[in-house]
Amino acid sequence: MPQVLAYATSSKDGIFEKTTIERREPGPTEIFFEVKYAGICHSDIHTVREEWGPVDFPIVPGHELAGIVTQIGPEVTKFTVGDKVGVGCFVDSCGECEYCTSGQEQFCSSTEKPTVWTYGDKGRDGKKTDGGYSQGITVEQNYACRIPDEIPFEAAAPLMCAGITTYSPLKRWGAAPGKQVAVVGMGGLGHMGVQIAAALGAEVTVISQTMSKKDDGIKFGAQHYFAMSDPETKKQLRARFDLILTTVSNADTVADLLPMLKVSGALVNVGLPEEHVKVSFGALCGGNKIIAGSNIGGIGETQEMLDFCAEHGLAPQVEVISGEEITGAYDKVVNSQVRYRYVIDTSTF
Amino acid sequence: MPQVLAYATSSKDGIFEKTTIERREPGPTEIFFEVKYAGICHSDIHTVREEWGPVDFPIVPGHELAGIVTQIGPEVTKFTVGDKVGVGCFVDSCGECEYCTSGQEQFCSSTEKPTVWTYGDKGRDGKKTDGGYSQGITVEQNYACRIPDEIPFEAAAPLMCAGITTYSPLKRWGAAPGKQVAVVGMGGLGHMGVQIAAALGAEVTVISQTMSKKDDGIKFGAQHYFAMSDPETKKQLRARFDLILTTVSNADTVADLLPMLKVSGALVNVGLPEEHVKVSFGALCGGNKIIAGSNIGGIGETQEMLDFCAEHGLAPQVEVISGEEITGAYDKVVNSQVRYRYVIDTSTF
Repeated sequence: MPQVLAYATSSKDGIFEKTTIERREPGPTEIFFEVKYAGICHSDIHTVREEWGPVDFPIVPGHELAGIVTQIGPEVTKFTVGDKVGVGCFVDSCGECEYCTSGQEQFCSSTEKPTVWTYGDKGRDGKKTDGGYSQGITVEQNYACRIPDEIPFEAAAPLMCAGITTYSPLKRWGAAPGKQVAVVGMGGLGHMGVQIAAALGAEVTVISQTMSKKDDGIKFGAQHYFAMSDPETKKQLRARFDLILTTVSNADTVADLLPMLKVSGALVNVGLPEEHVKVSFGALCGGNKIIAGSNIGGIGETQEMLDFCAEHGLAPQVEVISGEEITGAYDKVVNSQVRYRYVIDTSTF
Repeated sequence: MPQVLAYATSSKDGIFEKTTIERREPGPTEIFFEVKYAGICHSDIHTVREEWGPVDFPIVPGHELAGIVTQIGPEVTKFTVGDKVGVGCFVDSCGECEYCTSGQEQFCSSTEKPTVWTYGDKGRDGKKTDGGYSQGITVEQNYACRIPDEIPFEAAAPLMCAGITTYSPLKRWGAAPGKQVAVVGMGGLGHMGVQIAAALGAEVTVISQTMSKKDDGIKFGAQHYFAMSDPETKKQLRARFDLILTTVSNADTVADLLPMLKVSGALVNVGLPEEHVKVSFGALCGGNKIIAGSNIGGIGETQEMLDFCAEHGLAPQVEVISGEEITGAYDKVVNSQVRYRYVIDTSTF
């Protein structure tokens, strides 16, 4: 059994301490890879702080993993030792249901072999799953993606969640040349959304709380930048967008954003407000408008996103931190102090 | 100036009395038609009762008109005297904006020549518009549709609102063979939605408050019928539908309906709840789900709907009433006592 160093927290206080965890020997179709970098996603923080429900502590979070394959099972065909690979939010699913067979493994409908989430879930071996804040992991080959060499390795990790979470809805809802796309919030998700929407050819507007990140927004590919805190913004952006991708969890923004949609426009949320959102159906009907949710993407689409980022030179802007810095990083993420994603360098463990 | 008999109400109490109103002589591209039948839409009642805002009384409601052309302007090419025509919710728009030129006149974006609603609006002649509870109306030829002979004349009137309001979203959101479609509510809109969804080839389920209209639902083309009041319904219909068309104005139903959508399914509302609807964005994101509004349809699509109904033998089930019965009919609509649409026979005026 491979033993690897990891950082775990034993309570919702989120104090992370170094520990050792066991990984299983790779099965016939499994790979073991050394995790080199792991991103810190805001949802790790929601989970650890039990904002999304009770947690079975201790927990090793992390669903943005980038590493190098060091061991493969005898029937593995997709990877070989030395390959750069990434793993995102899930590590297994049934592989046979209508969603698994249509590339939407995150929605696996099997009750016997449902989607296995990368951490805090029960794996096929019956044990609790541990995530990416660790020096290695064993996964089924079909749940890992190939990381193109063009993407800086440490920046590849956040693509496995922040990248696919923004790429999938931008593609589905038609970000393309001639389309007006707004990205609301410019944090870990938003700053990837801006880059991807621009690379897809859309005219991109950032709507942020303030103007403080404007220069970065323009650098990432936005052509316009507005502050939601400015009362003029609502007037100026009325009926402007074909698509609004909102990455913020503030439920109150929706009422302000709906009038900014053109007829038949879509507001797509990936920011997951905790409380229910009050929606005026009159405002929806008045312009055949759409509100939709989006939840990461399947393995095939994640690979497509990685290849797209490589082709267009896109990558998250990251701050690389050590294992000891994880505890302090959580508050900084919540306070929007990170530019734009923390990535843990596991060689510091 | 043609003078026509009409029924108007002078207050939100909704007591209708016979009166005489003036219509203008048809301009070069206008037609005058004798209104033979006018449907009573629930939105007439919302309007008269000032549930949607203050009203400039007296008002002649009615936006479901069917009649026969008796006079045409010298440049009219679309119709001739004797033609059967229908008019719906609007009678004019700019004709030049991106929405008018793409067949979505109901969303005309002109500020100078915006959409003119059939009643209670200000017409191009500067006068208040009067609706269909009248024996005749003058309209621009481009805002009337041809009523096919295959459709019983008195049943054609409600198609101009109830028909297009359900046809447009069912088409846009993919009601088709192999698709599971639910229609929520089986009133004036719902009973047309069932017929149209079935004719489009979908497998149709009605979700009504009770089972009282089940036999009619099956007759209209539904294959399944469930009562929302039965606690088992939520369990049995979990993750069942590609599309849910909800025609009810009860905001509380949305939370119960979202779990009934499959992954990527859409809940489309045409029932216009007055209060804001509380929506769990977690429930949306959890399955890439969609909530959308829909507002009638353009003139071209309304003609398409009429031709579709003629081809498939679809028509509203109506109860024909006299002018004197309008006042009493309003309460019966609100109390769901009508099967399924009241149509006023204007020869009784």
